[in-house]
Amino acid sequence: MSRVYNFSAGPAVLPEEVLKQAAAEMLDYNGCGMSINEMSHRSKTFDSVIQTAEQDIRDLMNIPDNYKVLFLQGGASQQFAAVPLNLMKNGKAAYIITGQWAKKAYQEAQKYGEAIEVASSADKTFSYIPDCSDLPIPDDADYVYICENNTIYGTKFKTLPNTKGHILVSDVSSCFLSEPVDVTKYGVIYGGVQKNVGPAGLVISIIREDLITDDVPVYTPTMLKWKTQADNGSLYNTPNCWSIYMCGLVFKWLKAQGGLEEMKKRNEEKAAILYDYLDQSKMFKGTVRKEDRSLMNVPFITESDELNAEFIAEATKAGFVSLKGHRTVGGMRASIYNAMPIEGVRKLVEFMDKFEKERA
Amino acid sequence: MSRVYNFSAGPAVLPEEVLKQAAAEMLDYNGCGMSINEMSHRSKTFDSVIQTAEQDIRDLMNIPDNYKVLFLQGGASQQFAAVPLNLMKNGKAAYIITGQWAKKAYQEAQKYGEAIEVASSADKTFSYIPDCSDLPIPDDADYVYICENNTIYGTKFKTLPNTKGHILVSDVSSCFLSEPVDVTKYGVIYGGVQKNVGPAGLVISIIREDLITDDVPVYTPTMLKWKTQADNGSLYNTPNCWSIYMCGLVFKWLKAQGGLEEMKKRNEEKAAILYDYLDQSKMFKGTVRKEDRSLMNVPFITESDELNAEFIAEATKAGFVSLKGHRTVGGMRASIYNAMPIEGVRKLVEFMDKFEKERA
Repeated sequence: MSRVYNFSAGPAVLPEEVLKQAAAEMLDYNGCGMSINEMSHRSKTFDSVIQTAEQDIRDLMNIPDNYKVLFLQGGASQQFAAVPLNLMKNGKAAYIITGQWAKKAYQEAQKYGEAIEVASSADKTFSYIPDCSDLPIPDDADYVYICENNTIYGTKFKTLPNTKGHILVSDVSSCFLSEPVDVTKYGVIYGGVQKNVGPAGLVISIIREDLITDDVPVYTPTMLKWKTQADNGSLYNTPNCWSIYMCGLVFKWLKAQGGLEEMKKRNEEKAAILYDYLDQSKMFKGTVRKEDRSLMNVPFITESDELNAEFIAEATKAGFVSLKGHRTVGGMRASIYNAMPIEGVRKLVEFMDKFEKERA
Repeated sequence: MSRVYNFSAGPAVLPEEVLKQAAAEMLDYNGCGMSINEMSHRSKTFDSVIQTAEQDIRDLMNIPDNYKVLFLQGGASQQFAAVPLNLMKNGKAAYIITGQWAKKAYQEAQKYGEAIEVASSADKTFSYIPDCSDLPIPDDADYVYICENNTIYGTKFKTLPNTKGHILVSDVSSCFLSEPVDVTKYGVIYGGVQKNVGPAGLVISIIREDLITDDVPVYTPTMLKWKTQADNGSLYNTPNCWSIYMCGLVFKWLKAQGGLEEMKKRNEEKAAILYDYLDQSKMFKGTVRKEDRSLMNVPFITESDELNAEFIAEATKAGFVSLKGHRTVGGMRASIYNAMPIEGVRKLVEFMDKFEKERA
């Protein structure tokens, strides 16, 4: 067996220790004689799995007691509908458009009320984060919505927008658990886990309790009503037990590594290696305004599509895989999530440098 | 490691061969250097996984070309909303209420139009399937809805209802792939996979193409619109890749066993062992009208709650686990899905017989 360096934007690299433990427990979880894939979600064993996972993410993120943690299906795309369905009381919300996912959330919200674009970086292919210090947010807006780290374009909000007292809703899918956050600044934080946390098919929504109510439109599907999910401890129906279990193993791994402070340190170190190289390279260049660069997703290009393709092909052969940029933008993108070891980034840069020198 | 006999109603027992293969491939799927849990859902490798899974279930169920196979999130509970959202054009549908899940589907449909109860077995705690040969189905009903195998109560439609020319929609969650079916008799067949197929967090919906349209209410969440999912080959967003992979392994296993004809034979044989024992026992008795008995879920009781509890406790100690009946009905229930070996049923019956004789 030979493992590659996997720079996929998601689903993405997981800690090898976690995969090894999952393999070892596949036929018999914790001496119960069955796989985690085979047990009732209402069994004591699984109850312990989900409760422990919840406590561990609470510890990692320092989530206050007045926030619920929901383990849901349907990914961020389903929360794009759940957010307006659960939060639009005045039928109005402010969206900051920093990429494709923010735009999709904005379009979905238009089904349920007046979604207002209050800022956008579409003018420069979403290569920066707009100034959000004084946005025209309507007084009666129910919330302000952001996609905090933009996987496709490689930007990140380094400071949160001034919401002028409104609830902040943030999709953190691609920066989930990458650094400490102050949960109290948000009404809702949610993320698909398949980028920086665990296997696909699970979204974790962290929601301030007072925002979870029965006051939703009559046409809200039961599964999209947060109150249903919260009242049932995420077990209204059978959840994605495997992903909850795997995320739980990742939470334990994160704690053992030193928690989110340590992750931030490592992620900054890894990103610096790559960005520093890009900044001095004559062949490769980053596409994002420096102050808005993501620690997680690093897009870069060469002078031509042909050279991009050549680089990707050679990198793949050398064991650096999934470096192709998103199908909508092209170029390259290295996603360097928590589970990407620093050696992976160092070796990628060595490879890029060699590739560049050979063609100088 | 000591495996138990797992009679859970779902998530439920999986073939040991499948679990072993999954464990073996956990760090390196098919020589690609990464886990199935780590790879992009848009990679060639995963494309092959999902395409192969689709072809295999098409082969197993003999699904005609004019039916789409969708791999979706949210379980059957989410399809309870998707069915009326996608199918109610006249705003009217006929529901046959044979248990809690049919009832939940019926209640969800009331959000979107007129859901009419055309038959019910609630009068006798859902212990039988009502006569459905001549139901008062309105001419303009958009569809007739059934839950084909009732997990909690242990009943099964042995003949499909006379829909009087209307589209039949069937939730087959707990009898999925347990025997051959004539797909052409249905407009929609769907099932959560976590009972008889694979890990939780995936529902497979098999839908006649002409029923997949853009004509849905404006408030339909994108994720619940079948057309979105069909147009994107179930990859509108990141699906539950793990469960799709595991279901694919189960499909291969089913083919290797001889397909659904062979499964039917084995399931009839297993069920007969248990029902024959119940029919002659003086301590245990089945709760379902004989002609409506499920091959998958076998509920039974003794004369008292105390004796039920004692039996469950002793059975658990002896390695026969998850025999407790659903929390809403009590008693016992043995779920004997495809992956339950015949020895498991034989040994359970031996154990029940011994328990009975010791207390005679």
